[in-house]
Amino acid sequence: MSLSQLSFDIASLQAAYRNGVTVREVIAEARRRCLADTHHAHIRVLSTDELEPFVARLDGVDPASLALFGVPFAIKDNIDLAHIPTTAGCPDFAFTPVESAFVVRQLLAAGAVPVSKTNLDQFATGLNGTRSPFGACRNAINPDFISGGSSSGSGVAVALGHVSFALGTDTAGSGRVPASFNGLVGLKPTLGLLSASGVLPACRSVETPSILALTAADAQAVLGVAAAFDEADAYSRPAQPLGVDFSDGPFRFGVPREEDLEFFGNGAAAALFADAVKRLESLGGTAVTIDLSPFLEAAKLLYEGPWVAERYVAIQAFIDAHPQAVFPPVRTIIEGGRSKSAADAFAGAYRLKALRRVCDRVWDAVDCMLTPTAGTIYRIEEMEADPIRLNSHLGRYTNFVNLLDHSAVAVPAGVLASGDADGLPWGVTLGAPAHKDLALLRLADRFHRATGGTLGATTVDVESTPACTGLPGGEIGTSGTGTVRVAVCGAHLTGLPLNHQLTSRGARLVGSPTSAPEYRFYALAGGPVQRPGMVRVPEGGAAIAMEVWEVPAPLFGSFVAGIPAPLGIGKVKLDDGSEVPGFICEGIGIGGATDITRFGGWRAWLAAGAPR
Amino acid sequence: MSLSQLSFDIASLQAAYRNGVTVREVIAEARRRCLADTHHAHIRVLSTDELEPFVARLDGVDPASLALFGVPFAIKDNIDLAHIPTTAGCPDFAFTPVESAFVVRQLLAAGAVPVSKTNLDQFATGLNGTRSPFGACRNAINPDFISGGSSSGSGVAVALGHVSFALGTDTAGSGRVPASFNGLVGLKPTLGLLSASGVLPACRSVETPSILALTAADAQAVLGVAAAFDEADAYSRPAQPLGVDFSDGPFRFGVPREEDLEFFGNGAAAALFADAVKRLESLGGTAVTIDLSPFLEAAKLLYEGPWVAERYVAIQAFIDAHPQAVFPPVRTIIEGGRSKSAADAFAGAYRLKALRRVCDRVWDAVDCMLTPTAGTIYRIEEMEADPIRLNSHLGRYTNFVNLLDHSAVAVPAGVLASGDADGLPWGVTLGAPAHKDLALLRLADRFHRATGGTLGATTVDVESTPACTGLPGGEIGTSGTGTVRVAVCGAHLTGLPLNHQLTSRGARLVGSPTSAPEYRFYALAGGPVQRPGMVRVPEGGAAIAMEVWEVPAPLFGSFVAGIPAPLGIGKVKLDDGSEVPGFICEGIGIGGATDITRFGGWRAWLAAGAPR
Repeated sequence: MSLSQLSFDIASLQAAYRNGVTVREVIAEARRRCLADTHHAHIRVLSTDELEPFVARLDGVDPASLALFGVPFAIKDNIDLAHIPTTAGCPDFAFTPVESAFVVRQLLAAGAVPVSKTNLDQFATGLNGTRSPFGACRNAINPDFISGGSSSGSGVAVALGHVSFALGTDTAGSGRVPASFNGLVGLKPTLGLLSASGVLPACRSVETPSILALTAADAQAVLGVAAAFDEADAYSRPAQPLGVDFSDGPFRFGVPREEDLEFFGNGAAAALFADAVKRLESLGGTAVTIDLSPFLEAAKLLYEGPWVAERYVAIQAFIDAHPQAVFPPVRTIIEGGRSKSAADAFAGAYRLKALRRVCDRVWDAVDCMLTPTAGTIYRIEEMEADPIRLNSHLGRYTNFVNLLDHSAVAVPAGVLASGDADGLPWGVTLGAPAHKDLALLRLADRFHRATGGTLGATTVDVESTPACTGLPGGEIGTSGTGTVRVAVCGAHLTGLPLNHQLTSRGARLVGSPTSAPEYRFYALAGGPVQRPGMVRVPEGGAAIAMEVWEVPAPLFGSFVAGIPAPLGIGKVKLDDGSEVPGFICEGIGIGGATDITRFGGWRAWLAAGAPR
Repeated sequence: MSLSQLSFDIASLQAAYRNGVTVREVIAEARRRCLADTHHAHIRVLSTDELEPFVARLDGVDPASLALFGVPFAIKDNIDLAHIPTTAGCPDFAFTPVESAFVVRQLLAAGAVPVSKTNLDQFATGLNGTRSPFGACRNAINPDFISGGSSSGSGVAVALGHVSFALGTDTAGSGRVPASFNGLVGLKPTLGLLSASGVLPACRSVETPSILALTAADAQAVLGVAAAFDEADAYSRPAQPLGVDFSDGPFRFGVPREEDLEFFGNGAAAALFADAVKRLESLGGTAVTIDLSPFLEAAKLLYEGPWVAERYVAIQAFIDAHPQAVFPPVRTIIEGGRSKSAADAFAGAYRLKALRRVCDRVWDAVDCMLTPTAGTIYRIEEMEADPIRLNSHLGRYTNFVNLLDHSAVAVPAGVLASGDADGLPWGVTLGAPAHKDLALLRLADRFHRATGGTLGATTVDVESTPACTGLPGGEIGTSGTGTVRVAVCGAHLTGLPLNHQLTSRGARLVGSPTSAPEYRFYALAGGPVQRPGMVRVPEGGAAIAMEVWEVPAPLFGSFVAGIPAPLGIGKVKLDDGSEVPGFICEGIGIGGATDITRFGGWRAWLAAGAPR
């Protein structure tokens, strides 16, 4: 395969490096692709001289030693790359930082190579990609259409295969809408997981850097590197344990009520959403209808409430001094923040607190939510003719997400099959509480594969890329102790009297193995809840029917502490030879107990009338 | 003892009820005391008819069945009591609520009886107690001096023995400063622990109802009842596990640098603070000097920053329509909130976030902080002559506490021994991160007893009252699962190879008992870390030397999950007959093990050369 045909998905790149392709070759090819762009995706492609230090660093380095070795990436131009101007889409505002953003430094340390600064809706204010003096950024698949924004250039650059991934930012949907319109996976990480140091804020309290990638696996690889606690960013938060991972088992997902769904006349999009619901069901999901109205009410606060004042605070000195330097619709929006009062700000904060209390109840009913990413898409000329109203349509399902502190992943859901948008990709978003990023990525990956199709504007089939199976360390920035598996054999089994001790802790059933054939099984004396004891023996043992449950680790301690003698939690050997935490029994407990080994399990003994 | 001499501390009241005194008698006496007040402590004492339903409810009820049976209390007049006007210290603002505040309802359900609505700095805006059209509230010990505020009447009513405890509110110190000036314990609970439903807000995002009581034990009893999650209050937070309790063991406490301490010329207060540091050291504390300047900078945000706009939001419609109805210094402050912009609000929020990041680092070095509650005290005529400046002096050490989300307890630290304030009580505050309320109360109680003296303006010695030993359930609003005790007998003992598995989880040693004499003790086969097994036997057992460690419950699960077969965590019986979680051993593990029961413990076996 010639370099010009090399796919820049990370697995293909890694294979190329294993086959002797050099970083210099790949980065030169990436630069060539960027320079040939006709979509207004790039504000500044780095020169060969500017690229050289990043490439030279990798000379002689083992490609396998760095997670993102020689991976070309692009950076939205509101995120600093040292010694390269940051414009935020406003030439008069530009400055040249002496240091790269914290998140960029993480990527550089992992071997990634920055190739370009990308176009954006000016000051990250917009969801459509046309609001830039560098030119309206054109859709990667059909250049008559908008690219989505504000991370427009980042989305288009990845979709066209110029780079492997790109950094965006996301307050109102800026990292998700361009993913949807260009056939990409867009991760909007949990707020605070990616540092904002060196990122020009739009809405600092509800904003995050975001990741645009060809696949969920690629987004996860980038997240694993990019997520690092930053003491200098007051909004940085440490990664939390994922807890129960709903992505690979039965799960429940919320779907907005029919009356909450709005596709702005795009019937093809409505059909794709209906397909998406069915597809998630086919992956083990149970759809639960949810009332989206409190979410939509929260969404309105972002532009109609006080948060628009954050956009004003971010560039107050500049816009006060140079109002004419700001792109017209952007100026209208940001200057709107000037007239809000502190009383408005606190009243808005109270309202959001109340709405969040209501919206958070949804997590009692579902593991995640499924929504369109954007209900429809527009032609560039339509958007330019009606820039505020049509833009607001694009944010219907994305504006509430950061205000409510969700994690979210936008993922392709098919291709619009009718009308003049025929052939354009369209996507959905999976949302969940904060710190569920990894579960969402894995579920998004399963969904993406089930959808099928090609990545971005490339010809690479999603099925040909590696699945998103989990980070090497298991979790982001933690020791992988999110859950503990526990093997149970008696009253804790599904439907039995003590099962609630598991379910009330959010535990989930992950398997029903038998033990290794090395146990005697007893019905212990006492009650009222009858309990069994498994006693491992050197010989004469049998296999006992068990269930294995996955319990959030922080809640496992109280579970253990509540277990009465002679039982306890030790290690139980399963039929596959593995050992998992599970119920053990002190030898003294066998006094007065009935040996029920011959039944092979607690249910069988109960079914037989629990003979003593 | 005649009723007129009965102390209203809760233990004395409970003793009186056991001796046949009736609730009607006690509440009538409380009402008599309130009506005889000459300090302007009360805005409205309930009539006998108004009291009757609260009293009648308790007829025939077993006093032991309710935590606050027949306990008279007072309510700051910005907290609703159904059918009694709430004035917030402003007669023109008054309204009559149909429902009591959520926190009041909790107290009523526990048998407490509301006797009065108390005077306050109008709209809870002030720390001195003079800002009320109902009269400047006078100090309970010396009426020429200020009472402190804004919960002035609540403090004075408790100090004078009118009621057992009172509810206040606390944003800037309003629940702590009156405690200090009137010789009380003032608990400013963790934000969100006590619901604000039915409380007129001053600064809603950084405010909490507070508890003024004669002793820490009484405050704890009230807290145990009052703290309950309120779905209707968006700022309500569930109680969190206390984690490690530093109050009864070695602890580290922060003390401001010499240059950060300001007593406004009050040398007697400075001397009492120096004594307080020594006293805490005598209780097992290690003083650590801390830089208070970032805390003091955060404090300034409360009145100089945007938060004053919250006061304006709270009564916007009223103050806009009736500015002349508001007490002059209060009006000046609250109207100051009108001119703040949303940009100011967000910029202030960013600044606070950054300061909090800096201030929170103190918790790496200390368990709690010791500061003066207020640096000095003033005569009423001094305060009235210079109402804004002198008031700001009073908040130096209290203004930052809610902004930084601390829990805090104000506790008496002695009596001012010189100058014209001779004989007035003076107090300090213990502060800690959120959710450390119970540890602070217990430490404050030990400090209070070590200080000695009488309660409030009463003649009751603190030493004569029961100690603050812990809530019946162990924790606030949880199932007592903040920590888990675990008994260890081998490599986890202090100084041995696996002890780090406990210490790295923040566990602490709480005792070194022996087991019940019912165990055989084995050195198990295998290694490299040698491990013991305790096997409980029906006869022929011995007592084994153990250590009991207290582990934060959320970290206990991962501890358990890491234990290899044949060991596990079950229940171990101790020499006092109690059972605690601890190491048990499967019977199969004894194969190849050495019986070392005769050594009576692991250390003794190791000391003997670990013979096999």
